[in-house]
Amino acid sequence: MVETNMGALGAIMAYGTEAQQREVARRVLEEGDKPAIGMTEPNAGTDLGALGTTATEREGAYVVNGTKHWITGGGISRTNLIFARIQDKDGNDQGIGGILVDKGTPGFTVGRVEAAMGLRGIPEAELIFEDCEVPAANLVLRDPKDGFKKLMNGYNAQRVGASAVALGIAQGAHDLAIDYMCEREAFGKKLKDFQGLGWMAAQGEMRLDAARLLIYRAACNARRLANNVMLPEMREASIAKAFVGHEAFHSVSESLQMFGAAGYSSDLPLERMLRDVRMFQIGGGTSQAQLNMIARGIFSNR
Amino acid sequence: MVETNMGALGAIMAYGTEAQQREVARRVLEEGDKPAIGMTEPNAGTDLGALGTTATEREGAYVVNGTKHWITGGGISRTNLIFARIQDKDGNDQGIGGILVDKGTPGFTVGRVEAAMGLRGIPEAELIFEDCEVPAANLVLRDPKDGFKKLMNGYNAQRVGASAVALGIAQGAHDLAIDYMCEREAFGKKLKDFQGLGWMAAQGEMRLDAARLLIYRAACNARRLANNVMLPEMREASIAKAFVGHEAFHSVSESLQMFGAAGYSSDLPLERMLRDVRMFQIGGGTSQAQLNMIARGIFSNR
Amino acid sequence: MVETNMGALGAIMAYGTEAQQREVARRVLEEGDKPAIGMTEPNAGTDLGALGTTATEREGAYVVNGTKHWITGGGISRTNLIFARIQDKDGNDQGIGGILVDKGTPGFTVGRVEAAMGLRGIPEAELIFEDCEVPAANLVLRDPKDGFKKLMNGYNAQRVGASAVALGIAQGAHDLAIDYMCEREAFGKKLKDFQGLGWMAAQGEMRLDAARLLIYRAACNARRLANNVMLPEMREASIAKAFVGHEAFHSVSESLQMFGAAGYSSDLPLERMLRDVRMFQIGGGTSQAQLNMIARGIFSNR
Amino acid sequence: MVETNMGALGAIMAYGTEAQQREVARRVLEEGDKPAIGMTEPNAGTDLGALGTTATEREGAYVVNGTKHWITGGGISRTNLIFARIQDKDGNDQGIGGILVDKGTPGFTVGRVEAAMGLRGIPEAELIFEDCEVPAANLVLRDPKDGFKKLMNGYNAQRVGASAVALGIAQGAHDLAIDYMCEREAFGKKLKDFQGLGWMAAQGEMRLDAARLLIYRAACNARRLANNVMLPEMREASIAKAFVGHEAFHSVSESLQMFGAAGYSSDLPLERMLRDVRMFQIGGGTSQAQLNMIARGIFSNR
Ligand SMILES: Cc1cc2nc3c(=O)[nH]c(=O)nc-3n(C[C@H](O)[C@H](O)[C@H](O)COP(=O)(O)OP(=O)(O)OC[C@H]3O[C@@H](n4cnc5c(N)ncnc54)[C@H](O)[C@@H]3O)c2cc1C
Ligand SMILES: Cc1cc2nc3c(=O)[nH]c(=O)nc-3n(C[C@H](O)[C@H](O)[C@H](O)COP(=O)(O)OP(=O)(O)OC[C@H]3O[C@@H](n4cnc5c(N)ncnc54)[C@H](O)[C@@H]3O)c2cc1C
Ligand SMILES: Cc1cc2nc3c(=O)[nH]c(=O)nc-3n(C[C@H](O)[C@H](O)[C@H](O)COP(=O)(O)OP(=O)(O)OC[C@H]3O[C@@H](n4cnc5c(N)ncnc54)[C@H](O)[C@@H]3O)c2cc1C
Ligand SMILES: Cc1cc2nc3c(=O)[nH]c(=O)nc-3n(C[C@H](O)[C@H](O)[C@H](O)COP(=O)(O)OP(=O)(O)OC[C@H]3O[C@@H](n4cnc5c(N)ncnc54)[C@H](O)[C@@H]3O)c2cc1C
Repeated sequence: MVETNMGALGAIMAYGTEAQQREVARRVLEEGDKPAIGMTEPNAGTDLGALGTTATEREGAYVVNGTKHWITGGGISRTNLIFARIQDKDGNDQGIGGILVDKGTPGFTVGRVEAAMGLRGIPEAELIFEDCEVPAANLVLRDPKDGFKKLMNGYNAQRVGASAVALGIAQGAHDLAIDYMCEREAFGKKLKDFQGLGWMAAQGEMRLDAARLLIYRAACNARRLANNVMLPEMREASIAKAFVGHEAFHSVSESLQMFGAAGYSSDLPLERMLRDVRMFQIGGGTSQAQLNMIARGIFSNR
Repeated sequence: MVETNMGALGAIMAYGTEAQQREVARRVLEEGDKPAIGMTEPNAGTDLGALGTTATEREGAYVVNGTKHWITGGGISRTNLIFARIQDKDGNDQGIGGILVDKGTPGFTVGRVEAAMGLRGIPEAELIFEDCEVPAANLVLRDPKDGFKKLMNGYNAQRVGASAVALGIAQGAHDLAIDYMCEREAFGKKLKDFQGLGWMAAQGEMRLDAARLLIYRAACNARRLANNVMLPEMREASIAKAFVGHEAFHSVSESLQMFGAAGYSSDLPLERMLRDVRMFQIGGGTSQAQLNMIARGIFSNR
Repeated sequence: MVETNMGALGAIMAYGTEAQQREVARRVLEEGDKPAIGMTEPNAGTDLGALGTTATEREGAYVVNGTKHWITGGGISRTNLIFARIQDKDGNDQGIGGILVDKGTPGFTVGRVEAAMGLRGIPEAELIFEDCEVPAANLVLRDPKDGFKKLMNGYNAQRVGASAVALGIAQGAHDLAIDYMCEREAFGKKLKDFQGLGWMAAQGEMRLDAARLLIYRAACNARRLANNVMLPEMREASIAKAFVGHEAFHSVSESLQMFGAAGYSSDLPLERMLRDVRMFQIGGGTSQAQLNMIARGIFSNR
Repeated sequence: MVETNMGALGAIMAYGTEAQQREVARRVLEEGDKPAIGMTEPNAGTDLGALGTTATEREGAYVVNGTKHWITGGGISRTNLIFARIQDKDGNDQGIGGILVDKGTPGFTVGRVEAAMGLRGIPEAELIFEDCEVPAANLVLRDPKDGFKKLMNGYNAQRVGASAVALGIAQGAHDLAIDYMCEREAFGKKLKDFQGLGWMAAQGEMRLDAARLLIYRAACNARRLANNVMLPEMREASIAKAFVGHEAFHSVSESLQMFGAAGYSSDLPLERMLRDVRMFQIGGGTSQAQLNMIARGIFSNR
């Protein structure tokens, strides 16, 4: 949920027109709509700049063509913020921008739904646009110089939100493990009384605490933009996401381990948590993409 | 498969009577039977010495009572080697031993089948014994002093076999990732041409090689027992299992990562491989149990 | 310096008499004295409860006997807070307490000075007490029930202080490495332009940030005691120390690595930094001792 | 020692003329000479192809100009195998080759000797060549196409030799730690009886075993060259060096940790071992350079 809302909603609130903001806020609050964000394409994942979807101006409208995939909430969300290469009437490239496409617009169909390892509560789907015409007023941002960068800024909120979800899963698993360690016995002792297991728990505690503080920092230092929307800094958002993505996965795996075979069973939530939490090293920008951004941040100041 | 056979088969071949060996070998070779090994109980996992299943002598027979769970192949295997506390006619404890219980024996039923995170090719099941009578000739080993230790020795083969399966999964995932790195492009380059990704692959290569050598060593140094069965040494088997269990899981996760979202999809085998390989830190003795055995080995020589 | 002051000073300010506080503060501010804290003995390191040094009441005085070692500033500091087993006139044990012994007191000599791997700016020395008599007013705390626990509380400040020093070293090394990566070339590129090296730097950045936040948290959440001294919580201090001790060492080693052979030379400060920073996994309580305390904290609430 | 001999000796024996082989073997066996290998220059470390030292043909001789640094045994060794850019009489570049320069040759002086973190048994020195003339017969290899590659092959022996030294140090430290764990007590128990410490020891055992097997493999699979010299394969040598360099350092650090403060003292060899073993991630090709080679190996077959 957080996963779905943050990215699209953040970008629209930060960079959309007043009319767009009002309408999207209304849908979210009144209709419970969860705006989807459509960036990824089969040939443009980490390398978003390679995206091929186009939105071409035509008599007060834009015509969208292209295919997105792995779009969370795709096919369910009424509001869809689609990243596309904006072209003027003569087909001249205007840079990458965002355009709103409503569910049900002719030319917009939902393709295959992914069978994913985890996070099966919300679907990820393919969105197909074939000569799909939307009103010109749906253009969120067109700015040959900075448009794409601004939209991506909106994505920093998504990163921090996703990190918080990952941490929540990991903390949940950790807490279950701690409880179990107080109950389960082996060799006449509670698990908590084996020093090696105690250290595993202590290390989990330590890493989850560090993760939590990195998320808090990114959230607290969010800068206030013109229209009162707050967006975290890229460096802090990337650090939070890369750290949490890694540690949360490791931590859930250690928590599962405490349960022995029971942890490997679908009767307990541990194995699902492990499948779910694996996502956060991929979706919302891979861990490798975060490292690239952190490195860029370090060296751009020098 | 290896998982199923190794443990039970190894123990029977090493410590069973000649008649047992001949019959079990026949079943495996002619009927394709995959003997199950039933050690674990709800209250006796790592701490096998706490097992509560009993096999009590009664007029040329043994009567088995108790419940096993997480038994691979349980309900499918014709041959079941059950670990039990052997008692003489007067109920005196004779130590832990193994007893063969055939599928279909009255008093032997299969309980719930586990819904496991992975390795769904073979079921793990609960085996319930209620006054289940088997011929006295089914006793594999009764030896108040060393019986349990010997049976556990048979388990070293299982450990090396399991390690080989885990390595196979990890190597398979690694090879898929290497292939994909030669194809997939981002930012105008093949993945293999990103140094950071290349180092991830190199590190995988390195760790899988180390894992392989540890398995080879344990297998090559297996000692030949009386009846020509070869069993690996505890120290080498435990080192192989602990190292491989950890590195194989890590390596599959890194291989999955190379694929981005595609790795998280059930369309490719990566996510299944990750679920499968997670088992090897638990089944066949947890990684923690291996570390305990390695440590015991280090200090017992001093 | 921080290393020296924090522990002894914190404990005296928190639990000393008003006269002691006034005098010690005066020495520190006017004379530049750096109070030493003497806890460790050859047979009582992590296991402080095993200490054998005694302070026995005798006519308005205490007579100290025993040997401490690895005492930072030992032989230099005028003020020495010595942990001892307090005994009343009849030799009855009153629990562990602290007693102030001034440099120059008859019966107090400095033994061997350690040749340590690093941190050679301040000496660590052996302190020998042979029938060393100090005024009864020098007793910092005598409290059979909670005295030792309170003194150890004072040590939490030391832990956070030590963590800050370790982080400072690591951050310094990291900054040097970042600078060097902008200068040094290989294969026609700056080091910073090798993705693998950039990721190493990014990972350092991430871990140092997490370390910093854990230190800030422990410092900010320090509780205000009666006499206005603030002491951090055990859990947060231990987490900071265990995390920073480990990450700082790793981080300095990675920074050194950036320099190739130059990093291994005493011309640059990197190798000294690595030797210095290694201490923080030992002094002030080993990393293992911290893990024990964190685990105790987790399970004591349940 | 191994460090010194392997590289230069291996290369000469593999690719030198018969006269060179005979003479160098004589020096090593009769005089105890330890041939130095001079590759690294201030501006050419990992990137050896950038070396600037030249050896220019001049009437039956070669004139060497340039500066090497960090040359192990530099100034002590009689035999010095110097990597240089070979030029014919007209100054045309003939590729990189090796040339033997004896100690004492006019124009060859030893510059500064490095103050290194460890390995202080043998000096590393700067070698300065100013119009230093040596007989043409001293040219080890001149082969515009493959010469450099062949010389570097000779270096694979060095890598495996260096790995063996690193492992030896680590195993020595590990053994000391195991002994100490059987003696030292805390909280009324031997260190070996703390599960967490036992696991640290077990993990050391595991990693050192894996390291050993990787070294054995590289050594055993060395290919026999024309003149009976055996050189390991690049892939296996690089894997051994990268793995051992990392694990040996980590393992020595863990062994030191077992000793508490005593490990940090120069009274015991642990701290020296840690300083010594740090070298093996740098000298003989950095760990990063090994990863590059391993990756190249993986992808060159595809
Ligand atoms: C559950 C889930 C939900 C998702 N939801 C959404 C959504 O709502 N909207 C949306 O637009 N997208 C969504 N995605 C897609 C996600 O954002 C992409 O998967 C991600 O950005 C990676 O792209 P990719 O899968 O094409 O991998 P690729 O970009 O092809 O990456 C393959 C591998 O190469 C690495 N790599 C790529 N470039 C570099 C580089 N320059 N340097 C080093 N390594 C590199 C990657 O780290 C990865 O390991 C979702 C994905 C998942 C799994
Ligand atoms: C897929 C699968 C297949 C299996 N197949 C079989 C089979 O065919 N036959 C069979 O008999 N069993 C089988 N098992 C069971 C397996 O052998 C046990 O799960 C395993 O031995 C652990 O026991 P447990 O699950 O009861 O965990 P527990 O023993 O309760 O362990 C819980 C946690 O405590 C830790 N722990 C326990 N004791 C100690 C200690 N002394 N020191 C430190 N840590 C400790 C464990 O490492 C674990 O992390 C299978 C399990 C799985 C998952
Ligand atoms: C540079 C330096 C400065 C110092 N300055 C001071 C000072 O100013 N004042 C002072 O009083 N002391 C000082 N110390 C001493 C320091 O506090 C002790 O070294 C430390 O507490 C460990 O004690 P030890 O060396 O006796 O190791 P031991 O306690 O013998 O520990 C040996 C090993 O066993 C482990 N271990 C011990 N108990 C347990 C357990 N229960 N569970 C698991 N593992 C355990 C330890 O972690 C360690 O790895 C200093 C030490 C150093 C290196
Ligand atoms: C104790 C000691 C003994 C030595 N003995 C000898 C000897 O006998 N003879 C001899 O010739 N040399 C010797 N050396 C030198 C050694 O071989 C070099 O130090 C080593 O090759 C690295 O070169 P550099 O120091 O110039 O580092 P650089 O090459 O400048 O490397 C700096 C950093 O950049 C990294 N880096 C460089 N290139 C790349 C790349 N392409 N991709 C990613 N990362 C990269 C390195 O890994 C390192 O982290 C010795 C060094 C030491 C420390």
